[in-house]
Amino acid sequence: MKTVSEVRSHGGTQGVYTHRSAETGTEMTFSVFVPDHGDGEKLPVVWYLSGLTCTHANVTEKGEFREACADFGLIFVAPDTSPRGEGVPDDAEGAYDFGLGAGFYVDATQAPFDKNYRMRSYLEEELPALIGDHFPADISRQSIMGHSMGGHGALTMGLRNPERFKAISAFSPIVSPLNCPWGHKALGSYIGNDQSAWREYDACALIEDGARVPDILVDQGTADNFLEGQLKPELLQAACAKVGQSLTLRMQEGYDHSYYFISSFMPDQLAWHAERLAQ
Amino acid sequence: MKTVSEVRSHGGTQGVYTHRSAETGTEMTFSVFVPDHGDGEKLPVVWYLSGLTCTHANVTEKGEFREACADFGLIFVAPDTSPRGEGVPDDAEGAYDFGLGAGFYVDATQAPFDKNYRMRSYLEEELPALIGDHFPADISRQSIMGHSMGGHGALTMGLRNPERFKAISAFSPIVSPLNCPWGHKALGSYIGNDQSAWREYDACALIEDGARVPDILVDQGTADNFLEGQLKPELLQAACAKVGQSLTLRMQEGYDHSYYFISSFMPDQLAWHAERLAQ
Repeated sequence: MKTVSEVRSHGGTQGVYTHRSAETGTEMTFSVFVPDHGDGEKLPVVWYLSGLTCTHANVTEKGEFREACADFGLIFVAPDTSPRGEGVPDDAEGAYDFGLGAGFYVDATQAPFDKNYRMRSYLEEELPALIGDHFPADISRQSIMGHSMGGHGALTMGLRNPERFKAISAFSPIVSPLNCPWGHKALGSYIGNDQSAWREYDACALIEDGARVPDILVDQGTADNFLEGQLKPELLQAACAKVGQSLTLRMQEGYDHSYYFISSFMPDQLAWHAERLAQ
Repeated sequence: MKTVSEVRSHGGTQGVYTHRSAETGTEMTFSVFVPDHGDGEKLPVVWYLSGLTCTHANVTEKGEFREACADFGLIFVAPDTSPRGEGVPDDAEGAYDFGLGAGFYVDATQAPFDKNYRMRSYLEEELPALIGDHFPADISRQSIMGHSMGGHGALTMGLRNPERFKAISAFSPIVSPLNCPWGHKALGSYIGNDQSAWREYDACALIEDGARVPDILVDQGTADNFLEGQLKPELLQAACAKVGQSLTLRMQEGYDHSYYFISSFMPDQLAWHAERLAQ
């Protein structure tokens, strides 16, 4: 692991790091905020998965998470959204919603994407081990949140790994790739045409198939351009209601899809995580 | 005035606007955050002047001021740092510390800069009138803060206009252009070689020449690359001590010159402003 930068902020250290990933076969970049803490003290870890087109940098610069993380004593990890670099296959037309910046947090099974696009294993196995080795992280206390495509990532990874994550939340998540154009494009090419194989990457399908967690928190802006065509929180609401899965869905009047929205509710979501991580 | 964008954030509206400035002879861009407020209610105004190379966008995206402004009911105005556009003269070598992005908040007297580089009059006369006309601003309650070159702008504008500003603070300000390379380069070219004419643009000289305000707050990181060569807060400390001008200078251990530093202490500085604006 190499340190790209470390800077003092909000009573802690905001770092950016790179490492060679065995899963993706590429150099991966991520950021970690570590609040000041006692010698030998280990802190709980909040994972933040970013949306389409983002790198670690967007939330690191605009997410306004550090003050709350310092207050609550939370490590905040922001990975990249896809493998990158020479030889990594991208969308044929360079579109924003597939390929680079759009890994959808899956292990691709279809050539030519199956070699590098292994974001699921990267985030479920490889990066947590690295974080546990290099940071004062209490890996028995982890939680996960994300935005848009990263909200999809947080929900699905959280639902698949209830023993790992004590809290799951999302900002304007894609709740069902099976039921939106972004999902069809991405999973069709990463996973193939057999939609039964998509179900482990679809929060609604996972719940329908029996996945359960103590509760889920979602903030969704009502002025979000992608609300009706892509995000469809009502599908998650229906899936949860049908089986009694606890869900707090907060429709935030007038908010859009941007970091102006995310940063507005970040401290509140982190308070919700901190409460569950303390248990 | 034209609206470039308005977006909901932190219980208020973050807008970006442009207008044709009579002072600079150019189209000027600025941002304004207006917290939700009652019908007909007018809110105090905090001016934030940015540093070298910045536009309104840096603090708007990375300043983390909105939560505190919403809590305290403060309008936050972030102007640009220089005129821009075709025909506006720039540094001969395109350096970052003069010309575009580096107006130093002066009214230039030297050709070819005297035509457009009128940031003092723009900020002392023209933009406040526009803000008063177009926003729910209580212009009897204003305060000013800034970073680096903008800290210089905030200190000097505040010291020259004690009746206008109820609070003055700065992050890592240039406290004496008479005593640093940035100042010599900029004021030499904008104002000319007669250094007596620089004194109204030098916080230490203004205090030496009799300017007084109730108090001044400065946060300065100890790991700031520009601390010894350019910023020299000890000069401000000495100038204030000599005449009994109240100054709170907080050396912040390990912090640098970036928005990771500014955002760390922004809520605290805004609380200090809010207290004085309430009086």
